Order: sequence, then structure tokens, then C-alpha cells
Amino acid sequence: MSTLVKKVYGVGVGVGDEKLITLKALEVLKKVDKIFIPISKKGKRSIAYEIIKNHIDEKDVEELLFPMIKDKEKLKKYWETAVNKVINEKGEVAVITIGDPTLYSTFSYLWKILKEKNIDVEIVNGISSIFASASALGIPLVEGDEKLCILPQGKDIEKYINEFDTIIIMKTKNLKEKLEKIKDKDNYMIGLVKKATFKDEKTAFGRFEEINFDEFSDYLSLAIIKRIK
Amino acid sequence: MSTLVKKVYGVGVGVGDEKLITLKALEVLKKVDKIFIPISKKGKRSIAYEIIKNHIDEKDVEELLFPMIKDKEKLKKYWETAVNKVINEKGEVAVITIGDPTLYSTFSYLWKILKEKNIDVEIVNGISSIFASASALGIPLVEGDEKLCILPQGKDIEKYINEFDTIIIMKTKNLKEKLEKIKDKDNYMIGLVKKATFKDEKTAFGRFEEINFDEFSDYLSLAIIKRIK
Repeated sequence: MSTLVKKVYGVGVGVGDEKLITLKALEVLKKVDKIFIPISKKGKRSIAYEIIKNHIDEKDVEELLFPMIKDKEKLKKYWETAVNKVINEKGEVAVITIGDPTLYSTFSYLWKILKEKNIDVEIVNGISSIFASASALGIPLVEGDEKLCILPQGKDIEKYINEFDTIIIMKTKNLKEKLEKIKDKDNYMIGLVKKATFKDEKTAFGRFEEINFDEFSDYLSLAIIKRIK
Repeated sequence: MSTLVKKVYGVGVGVGDEKLITLKALEVLKKVDKIFIPISKKGKRSIAYEIIKNHIDEKDVEELLFPMIKDKEKLKKYWETAVNKVINEKGEVAVITIGDPTLYSTFSYLWKILKEKNIDVEIVNGISSIFASASALGIPLVEGDEKLCILPQGKDIEKYINEFDTIIIMKTKNLKEKLEKIKDKDNYMIGLVKKATFKDEKTAFGRFEEINFDEFSDYLSLAIIKRIK
């Protein structure tokens, strides 16, 4: 099957605040022939689309379904369906994503397949929730020669808390369980942020036992753990 | 001494491409009474200012000198001079920075002192070079459950290469020396990026011995090391 698409832009649209989109992202979204919007469930509101909808008018948009399932074989079929939709568009298209397309983004799966098919892909970077969350907490992520790590599921946090100045835990709905392992250590403070820059943003900063984790069980919550020196 | 300033914005202006600035950053830069521009040497061109200069017109701008020295006592004096300049401005001001203000930014030193003085600070996030560099290389930083770390001076890289999927080394002029420690390991690929999104951007991707490190001895170069699984 020959491909029709000329170029695919992977566009990061930033976080909740619709003004945290770049001029370049807007320029691309305005010029492309079609915008694809990844969704995790049919009928579910796309956050990425909410961010851009006031910036674009009467644009041809289409959803791409990427359910949040673990079965890789099943997932692969969804990716292939998505890729087929994308490559059979004429002209230039954009696939939007919240945050940045290079950091734990749905787009990376499409990107891999598009590269294998030698399709021209350009990434347009976006503001990541890791930075927006640090801003929401009012603390720098790292300064000077400090070391930082991102542990998606919090794996080995009890070990890395002694080696890294800042640890970010994201992509989990159960931050409490992941952070429980360090609760008896005395060398850290926990910052939690739910939906940074959204209207219902929530933050907390303190020790494990001081935090009401129920407020941060959202998939868009993340933890920034700072080691005390 | 009483302070005159009402609010200080720490504004990330992104990387080299002037279109990688956010709508929010532009809005803030347009409304503030003064824009402060950190420079490392008197008479030295400020990259952050180059990025914004076509976006703002006839704006009141002033430089803040932060020399690249290690002596903390001497540095502290420069920070204090800078803070005094900032807090003695009437109205709202912005301090601009390349990349994001929460990641190894000069702004974090000012931020700390401003917080101690109870001055209202708001961070406006920017596109970081770590994302722009991944885009330049055409690879995601991390996907799925992969772990990432940033080692500013490459410290302990020989250990972490076995534990992290992606290692970023930045803030050093000598990437070759830092990476030499892993040259005999067989489980990695090195991506190097100099001045991502600038007109003179340069990239390389390969094994240690395949790379011409002379082209990446700039302070704005960074390395993204991907573990092969």
C-alpha cells in the first residue's frame, strides 16, 4: 500500500493552560490539512483537544483510539489502525499530544512505525507537566550540579532517594503505594501536583504522613521528591 | 530597604528557534514594565535576548551579570546585586532564561532570594533543550516504563548506564571526557546535540569511537545516552 501523507508533525500542546502552547505549534496546527487527536476511550474528552480548540477554527480533526491496556499484541493493532489512518491522508497532518512528544508520549509508538515506513516526521516540542508541576509547587526541579531521575512506576525509589537530589514519579494512579517505601526515611520532602495549570490544579508539599493522597489519585498527578541535604 | 517591585516573572523563552516561545511568555513579556536579561560576561550576546528581541519592541531591558565562576561567596555578591536591581523596579518585571526556569536555570538563585524576601514570583515554563535535543536526534527520550536520569557532570555514568534506559549529560564543555568511562561497554548508543533548533545545530548518533567530539565542546551541547535492550 502506498502512502499519501507528505509529512507528519508530532505536536506537543503543553499542559492545561491553553496559553502554554508555542507559536510554532500553533503555526503547524493552522497549516496542516488534518489534526489527529489520540483518545484513550471512545466518547472520552481529549485533554489535548481541549487545549487547542480555541486556537483553531473549523479544522478537519479525527480521533485515534489508543486504549490504556497492557496487552502489547492488542495495542499493536490499535497503533497499526492509527498509522493507517495517518498515512492515508493527503498532504501534511499533525498528531497532537499533551506535554512533550519525546517524554512518555503516546506519539512515540506512532513515531516508531512512521520511521520504519520512511515517512517524514517532525516533532514540535511542548511544555511538559514535569516543569509545570515544579512551577506549581514553587520549587526548581534541579539547580547547580544536582542529579534528577524519573521513575515512572516509582521502582527502586528507596534506593535512588539516597543518590538523586530530585526524583519524579509519574504515569501511575497510585502514588501513595509507590511513596510508602520511603515514608520512614528522614531525608526527603514530597511535592504532589494534580493537573498542573488546569483550573482544578491541586498541590501538596510535605512529609508522607502529612499528605492526603486521595486528592492525587488522578492519572495526571505526579510526585516530585526532593532530597534534603 | 523596602521593595518596590510588585511581581517577578521567571520566564523561560525556550531554545534557539524563536517560535518555540509560548503564548503566555509573550503575553508576560509584553505587559511587564521591565525585562531583565541574565548575561555571563559584559558585552556578551545574550541568547535568551536574541530569542525574544523580534517579539518585543522598544521595551525597557536591563542586563544582570552572572559570571560563570565557581566561588560561591563571589557569586553570592552578584546574585545580591541582581536581586537589588530587580526588587527596586516599580511594577511587574520579567527575568528571562533559556530553556525552562525550573531545570538548571540561573533564575533559581534569584528565585531563592526573592522567596526569602516574600516577593511574588510566577514561573512561566519554557521548552527545554533536553526535549529539543531529542527531537533533533529524531528519538524519544523515554517511552512506556523507561527510566531516565540527568547527570549534570556525568558522575557515575558507568554505574547508571546499567540501570537507566536514558541518561542525559548536560552543563559540561567536556562530553568526551565524561563519556569515556562507558566507551568499552556494549549496551548503549550516544546521541550528541549542539545548539538544538539554532541555525548552527549539529547532531551525531553512534558509538563513542564513531563520534567527533570536537564539534560538541560547546556549553550548549548535551548528550542523550540510550541503553540498548
